[in-house]
Amino acid sequence: VPASSADPGGGRSPESPETRSERRFDLSRATAFSDGVFTIAATLLVLSIDVPQLSTADAGKLAQELGGQMDQYISYAISFAVIGLLWFRHHRFFHELAEVDAPMLALNLGYLAFVALVPFPTELIGEYSEQPIAVALYAATIAAISVFAVAMWWHAGEAHLFRSAAIEAESRRNALRVMVTPVVMLASIPVAYLDTSVARYMWLLLLLARPMGLPRASQAGT
Amino acid sequence: VPASSADPGGGRSPESPETRSERRFDLSRATAFSDGVFTIAATLLVLSIDVPQLSTADAGKLAQELGGQMDQYISYAISFAVIGLLWFRHHRFFHELAEVDAPMLALNLGYLAFVALVPFPTELIGEYSEQPIAVALYAATIAAISVFAVAMWWHAGEAHLFRSAAIEAESRRNALRVMVTPVVMLASIPVAYLDTSVARYMWLLLLLARPMGLPRASQAGT
Amino acid sequence: VPASSADPGGGRSPESPETRSERRFDLSRATAFSDGVFTIAATLLVLSIDVPQLSTADAGKLAQELGGQMDQYISYAISFAVIGLLWFRHHRFFHELAEVDAPMLALNLGYLAFVALVPFPTELIGEYSEQPIAVALYAATIAAISVFAVAMWWHAGEAHLFRSAAIEAESRRNALRVMVTPVVMLASIPVAYLDTSVARYMWLLLLLARPMGLPRASQAGT
Amino acid sequence: VPASSADPGGGRSPESPETRSERRFDLSRATAFSDGVFTIAATLLVLSIDVPQLSTADAGKLAQELGGQMDQYISYAISFAVIGLLWFRHHRFFHELAEVDAPMLALNLGYLAFVALVPFPTELIGEYSEQPIAVALYAATIAAISVFAVAMWWHAGEAHLFRSAAIEAESRRNALRVMVTPVVMLASIPVAYLDTSVARYMWLLLLLARPMGLPRASQAGT
Repeated sequence: VPASSADPGGGRSPESPETRSERRFDLSRATAFSDGVFTIAATLLVLSIDVPQLSTADAGKLAQELGGQMDQYISYAISFAVIGLLWFRHHRFFHELAEVDAPMLALNLGYLAFVALVPFPTELIGEYSEQPIAVALYAATIAAISVFAVAMWWHAGEAHLFRSAAIEAESRRNALRVMVTPVVMLASIPVAYLDTSVARYMWLLLLLARPMGLPRASQAGT
Repeated sequence: VPASSADPGGGRSPESPETRSERRFDLSRATAFSDGVFTIAATLLVLSIDVPQLSTADAGKLAQELGGQMDQYISYAISFAVIGLLWFRHHRFFHELAEVDAPMLALNLGYLAFVALVPFPTELIGEYSEQPIAVALYAATIAAISVFAVAMWWHAGEAHLFRSAAIEAESRRNALRVMVTPVVMLASIPVAYLDTSVARYMWLLLLLARPMGLPRASQAGT
Repeated sequence: VPASSADPGGGRSPESPETRSERRFDLSRATAFSDGVFTIAATLLVLSIDVPQLSTADAGKLAQELGGQMDQYISYAISFAVIGLLWFRHHRFFHELAEVDAPMLALNLGYLAFVALVPFPTELIGEYSEQPIAVALYAATIAAISVFAVAMWWHAGEAHLFRSAAIEAESRRNALRVMVTPVVMLASIPVAYLDTSVARYMWLLLLLARPMGLPRASQAGT
Repeated sequence: VPASSADPGGGRSPESPETRSERRFDLSRATAFSDGVFTIAATLLVLSIDVPQLSTADAGKLAQELGGQMDQYISYAISFAVIGLLWFRHHRFFHELAEVDAPMLALNLGYLAFVALVPFPTELIGEYSEQPIAVALYAATIAAISVFAVAMWWHAGEAHLFRSAAIEAESRRNALRVMVTPVVMLASIPVAYLDTSVARYMWLLLLLARPMGLPRASQAGT
C-alpha cells in the first residue's frame, strides 16, 4: 500500500516490472535491517557503563566509585537520544522512498556501519571525557553518519527514488539542511583541543535546534 | 485496521489528513523501536551473571563460586520479570493510542532510555546486594521508568491521543494508578539504607499486587 | 487470517468479543517478544568464545591457545542448535494457539527467562567442561525450559486455547512427549558427577531423536 | 501474497494443503530468525573494538593507543560490509523460495551458526592481524558460510523449493557461482602463512567482484 498508488513515474526511466518489484523488496529489507541496527546499537549503549570491580573490603566505596562515573551516565543519555533521533529521521526518509537502487543500498550500509559504531565513541567519551581525541572521535562518528545522510538525500533526488515529485523537488534543499550536522560536529573537533566541555555544548545546541517533532514530511532529515 | 475505524474525533483539533497519517506512521515506528529495546534489554541481562575466572588448579572450587553468586541469579530473575511485565503494559498502552505527537515520542524515548539501562543496576545489585547505593539505584531506575509511564498516560489523555473516548475518560485515574510504582520504589530507597533486604521485599509486593493478567484494557498501566 | 476462520468454539466459555480480541493481541505480542529473545540469545552465544589475551611477545602462541579452546567451539555449536530447535518448536506451538491467557503468558515468560539464560551455562561448560557442576547447570537449564514447555502444552489443552479441537485432543499426549527432554536432562546430572563426557553424549542422543523436521503440526513440541 | 500466485507445481510431488501451509509458515519463521541473526551479529561487531584501559596518569596516551588499533577498525568495516552483503544475498535467495523442507532448515541453521560466529574471528583478526591463524580462521568462517550457501542453492533446486521454474533451472549454475567464495577464501589460508596482508587483499578482490547491486533475481547468491 505505501508505495503502490504513488509513483506517477514522471522522469523515471522505463523498466521491467520485475526489476521495480525487486527494488521495492530491497527497500523493505533495507528498512528492516536498518531498524534492527538502530535498536540494538541503542540497547548496547548500556554496556558502556562500568560496574565497579571492588574487593569485599572496599565494597563500601561503591557509592563514591559510581558517583565518579558521571560522564558515563551523561554520554549514555546523549547517545541514546542521538540514536533515537537518527532512527526517526532515517525512518521518515525511507518512508518517502518508492524504491532503492544499488548505490542507495551501499550508502545505507555505510550509514549503518557508523550508527552501529556509536557505542564505541560513547564508551570512550564516558571514560576519557577530558581527552580531546575521545571528543573528536565522537564528533567524527556523528559527522560521518550525517554525511551519509546528506548523500542519501542527494542521491534519492538525482536517481528519482522518491514516492512523490514534491519531495523530490525539495531533496537538494533537505540535503543541504542535513549538512548542518556534519559542519557543526566537524567544527567542534578543533574546539575540543581547546576545551572539551565547550565542544560538547556545541552538540547540545544542535540537538535542541532539530528536535524530534519539528520535521514535517518534506523537511525530514535522516 | 487497528486505528482506522476508531477516532470519532470529538474534541480533537482539525488537521490535514497527511499529518494524521504521519502521526500514525510515527506510532507504528515507535512501537517497533520500543519492542526492540525491551527484548534486547531482557536478553542482555544474562551478561550480568559472572562466569568465575579460575585457574586450572582452582577449577574444583567452581561449584562453591557459583553458589556464592546467588544474588546474581535472583536479580536476573527479578529484572527479567520486571522487563517482561513492563513490556506488556507498554504494549497495552500503545495499543490504545490512535496516534502519537512529538511530546509523546520524547516521553517514550525517555522511558526507553531507562528500560535499556536496567541491565546496569541489575548487575550492580547482583554483585553488591548488601550496598544501599546498589539497591537505591535499582529502585530509582524502575521509579524513573514509571514516572515516564505516568506522564505518558497523562499526556495521552490531555492531547486526545487515545483511540476511544472511554479510555480517555479513565486516563487520569490510570496515571494515578501507575503512580503507585514510583511511590513504592522511591519509598524503598531510605529503607535500603536501613536494611537492603527489606527494601527488596517491598518491590516483590509491588510485583505481586500488579500481576500480568490483571489489567483489562481500560486498566492497563505502562 | 491465521486464527480468524478457525476457533469453532466448542467447549469454550462465552466471552465478550473485546476480551477475545485482547487475548489475540496478547498472543501476537508474546510471539514477537519470544522471537526476539530466541534470536538475541542465539547471537549472544558468540560472546562465550574467548579471544586470547596475549602480549606481543607471546602472540606466536595464538594458534596453540585457540586450539586449547575446543570445548568452547563445541558448546557454541550445541547451544546454537539447541536454541534453533527450541525456537522452531516454540513457533509451531504458538502457531496452534488461538489466544493466550494470563497463566500462559506467565509460563511463557518463565520459559523465555531460561532460554535467555542459555549463554551463561554455555560459557560455563565451554570453560569448565570437566567440572560436573558446569554440565549439571547446563542440563538443568534445558530441563527447566522443557518443564515450562510441558506446562504450556498441558495448560493450553486444559484452558481450550488451541485453534483446533484435533490439536487439543492430543495436547496431553504431546505434553508427555515433551516430558522426555527434562527426564533425560535431569538423568544426565548424576551421570555428570561420574563422567562429564558421557552426560553430554546423552544430550546428543536427545537431539538426534527429535530432529527439526520430524514434528508434524500435531506432534510439534515446544 | 509473495508465494501464493506463483508455484505452478510442475514436477512437484502431490501433498496435502496442510503440509504446504506448514512449510510456508516455516519459511516465514526461518526468514525472521535469519534476519535477527544477521542484524544482531552486525551490531555486536562493535564489541570487537577495544576501549583502551589507561590509568589517569596515562590518559594522555589515549590518542596513541587508539591509533595503534587501526587493524580493529579495518576488520570492523570489512565484517560489517561482509555481513551486510551476505544478508542481502540470503534475502534474495529466500525471496525466491516457495517453501522450505527439513534439510533446508538444517542447512540454514548451520549457515546462521557461522554468520553469528563472525564477531569472533573479527575480534581475533583485529587484535592479531599478523598471526596467520587469525587470518585463517576468518577465511574459514566465511568459507563455511559460503559452503552452506552453495548447499542451499543446490538443495533448493533438487527438492523443487523455488517459486519459479526459471530460477530452478539456474540453481545449479548459481550454486557453482557461489562456490567461488569458499574457493578463494580457502585458497587464502595457505597464503596467510606466507603473508597475512596478501591473504586479506585476496578477500577484498572478492568483495569488489560481487557487489551488492550486481545480482539480478536469477543470479542472486546467498
